[in-house]
Amino acid sequence: MDYSRRKQVNQRSLTGAFVVAAGLIFGAVLPGQAALSDQQVTTLDTIKRDVSAASHSYQLIESLTTEVGARMVGTPGADLATDWAVNKMNQLGFDKVWVEESDAQLWQRGDLSASITAPYPHKLVAIALGGSVGTNGKPVEAEVVYFANLQALQDAPANSLTGKIAYVGYRMERHIDGHGYGKAVGARVAGASAAAQKGAVAFVMRSVGTDTNRIAHTGMMRYEDGVKKIPAVALSNPDADLLENMLHREEPVKFSLTTNASGPTGKTVTIANVIGEVTGSESPDELITLGAHIDSWDVGTGAIDDGIGIGIVLAAGHYIANMPTRPARTIRVILFAAEEIGLVGVRDYVARHKDNISNHMIGAEWDFGNGRIYQLEPGVGPSALNSIRDFATYLAPMGVALAPTNTAKGQSDMSLLGAAGQPAVNFAPDGLDYFDYHHTDNDTLDKVDQEALKVNTAIYTLFAWYAASSEVNFHQ
Amino acid sequence: MDYSRRKQVNQRSLTGAFVVAAGLIFGAVLPGQAALSDQQVTTLDTIKRDVSAASHSYQLIESLTTEVGARMVGTPGADLATDWAVNKMNQLGFDKVWVEESDAQLWQRGDLSASITAPYPHKLVAIALGGSVGTNGKPVEAEVVYFANLQALQDAPANSLTGKIAYVGYRMERHIDGHGYGKAVGARVAGASAAAQKGAVAFVMRSVGTDTNRIAHTGMMRYEDGVKKIPAVALSNPDADLLENMLHREEPVKFSLTTNASGPTGKTVTIANVIGEVTGSESPDELITLGAHIDSWDVGTGAIDDGIGIGIVLAAGHYIANMPTRPARTIRVILFAAEEIGLVGVRDYVARHKDNISNHMIGAEWDFGNGRIYQLEPGVGPSALNSIRDFATYLAPMGVALAPTNTAKGQSDMSLLGAAGQPAVNFAPDGLDYFDYHHTDNDTLDKVDQEALKVNTAIYTLFAWYAASSEVNFHQ
Repeated sequence: MDYSRRKQVNQRSLTGAFVVAAGLIFGAVLPGQAALSDQQVTTLDTIKRDVSAASHSYQLIESLTTEVGARMVGTPGADLATDWAVNKMNQLGFDKVWVEESDAQLWQRGDLSASITAPYPHKLVAIALGGSVGTNGKPVEAEVVYFANLQALQDAPANSLTGKIAYVGYRMERHIDGHGYGKAVGARVAGASAAAQKGAVAFVMRSVGTDTNRIAHTGMMRYEDGVKKIPAVALSNPDADLLENMLHREEPVKFSLTTNASGPTGKTVTIANVIGEVTGSESPDELITLGAHIDSWDVGTGAIDDGIGIGIVLAAGHYIANMPTRPARTIRVILFAAEEIGLVGVRDYVARHKDNISNHMIGAEWDFGNGRIYQLEPGVGPSALNSIRDFATYLAPMGVALAPTNTAKGQSDMSLLGAAGQPAVNFAPDGLDYFDYHHTDNDTLDKVDQEALKVNTAIYTLFAWYAASSEVNFHQ
Repeated sequence: MDYSRRKQVNQRSLTGAFVVAAGLIFGAVLPGQAALSDQQVTTLDTIKRDVSAASHSYQLIESLTTEVGARMVGTPGADLATDWAVNKMNQLGFDKVWVEESDAQLWQRGDLSASITAPYPHKLVAIALGGSVGTNGKPVEAEVVYFANLQALQDAPANSLTGKIAYVGYRMERHIDGHGYGKAVGARVAGASAAAQKGAVAFVMRSVGTDTNRIAHTGMMRYEDGVKKIPAVALSNPDADLLENMLHREEPVKFSLTTNASGPTGKTVTIANVIGEVTGSESPDELITLGAHIDSWDVGTGAIDDGIGIGIVLAAGHYIANMPTRPARTIRVILFAAEEIGLVGVRDYVARHKDNISNHMIGAEWDFGNGRIYQLEPGVGPSALNSIRDFATYLAPMGVALAPTNTAKGQSDMSLLGAAGQPAVNFAPDGLDYFDYHHTDNDTLDKVDQEALKVNTAIYTLFAWYAASSEVNFHQ
């Protein structure tokens, strides 16, 4: 996941004020909604028992990471992933499977080497930020100037970095809901242009990540219009520590960087959202959407980001497709393309389906890794709240608390569907270790917590069946 | 640390049988040794209080990793490390500081790239094993054949690997005393020649390491005389997982390897043991030795292996050098060169000082990382055992148990001094995470557990002072 998380964090911080102003929504009794019927509960119990005991989502992640691997936009892996997903959906019993193609900008990573050259030579672990330009085939070597965070860089005097390399050492905080990301990612997105505006020849930052491995974290950056494009890279956290320990001494520290990242190429590549449906038995035009993103960065095998999401939503669709009786509404599983480079696939999806959002009854995405779900927040119409409360009560013994707010707009890709009017449920998993692996070579199959995955897959399957068998209009 | 650990593990497994045969040594009351005097205990208490509260050893590791960094034999860092150590010893108040130079074989790592090329291309994280040859500037590409362990490879039929790449997937076990290393390292040392004997063109193995990071573990290997020298590399554990998941499928898996490792160059480089003494006040010719190794691999900054050892023994020497009264015997701190490539520095030390081992009263090395010391095992003459027992009783409140055996021969470099007749104490630290970082890029300052380091530094300082102020002849 990438940008949407920031949006999510902003929503959360607004939420606090909202609660104070409006009182706790669920404190009031709302009329007009029935509790879950005995029959519904029986079916939910069956789903819970079956899916909690199965390892189908793990098998799907194993298949994806072993047979496809990394799948960055513009690489052969991305096309391989489209084929894999179409084939899997067909094998899994989805009724309709199709792709919706559009275009995305091509960016290529190229090779990179980074080292400290003074006071003594030391090779560093660094990675180019997504979208960044290269050094034109030759090294850029310059003295490093330290900044504690993006604001300090932005506050530097004009021309104060002429011929220098700007380094931002902000260290991401570890939090269960991942809100440290929002505080750290600004430097990644805007740091290069901020540095270039002061005359810097390159921008280097501490990785946006909570681990202590010598593995650097990539992720998208953006150049400001009209500002010189300079190379932009992230160091692993231990390399950042070393650089800072050197900078705390008296001798100047020089840094040499060669990166062959392409910058904006002006070329486009075809991307494909892969969509599969389990057709509803009574109201097939009413859609319950489950989302994940099919692209990954080129590092690792994208097991966590977002192989887990792919595994969960495919396994949920598969289970419901193979139930003896179909629920009333259609389950639509959407594997969005090009999430990592700026929610590109979902933009095409919203543009194509914008006249049909009222049929998107409710959606949930999975794009936050590995941990057990601890909270559910709805974003539904007020008359649908009692039904959500009943469903949340059902989930409570699985460790899922109902948030006191009703402001969810969908996570990751689905934030744009939420903005377009789709009701949503946001499931919040324990994200304490998510940013240890996020956007790194370390995003591999062994990091998947198979026990948490079983529970989370069960919860998504329960949600999909609950919403698809409900008569509640979540818009209202 | 490297080879000596294996030796240590073998000693441990022998120890069990010894105990059964001989009974518990400490069950018998041994005559002739006094308990610690009140004055000794007062001094030990002062040392314990001061050193447990100080961060001197950490500051030394920070200095070494920041100002010198990696220090593999034959690199500029090795010479920088010699100068650093001489300067530090002088600054720290050692009375005599000198170097003893000798020669070691030169090996150079060069660049490496490794990838799976079929069923689909995937770049792998791999590292050349120390001592290994390269691929003569061009890739070696071949089908991979799986073996569960070294024995399975050795059992393969003659000529069964002609034109193939042999892969050994043995996964190292995690144990507090590190004995999983001994079971895993055989493949690293002997795998390449075993594979070449069956016709293989390269040898690939799962890293000897307990982590799940995409960071591979290096370490020494050896070619058998008369067997063709083939390239030898280790994969990171997640890469090994992926390779094995591919190998479990039907399609053949092809691997491409380019490594510019030099193999045996026939060239020698000068290495230097760095030695510093705090001269004893009454019996200056009687030596208490504290050891660590000054070289590291070229990956990481050698903070754990063996920066921690360097920090501990220098800090211990420094503290005693600055006490109001010197103990009777001399403290000799020895920073051994070229441990990683086969205990080369200590061989020279033993050769130079072989006629003087009876003056080496007792020694202890630190070369096992980060964890709190939980056990002390002596290797002393029988009449010295009661004194050791008294000292161990003093350490017990610090969490240090006395081993029931008296078979210690010294750890790491000091195992060769033990073999030459020097009595020893082996301190065993919690090594559960040691092989997460061992011989990898991840061996960096942030991995140092500063609280454990304070306690361990205190214990080594206590040991050095206890032994230097004792009248016990530990040989007898």
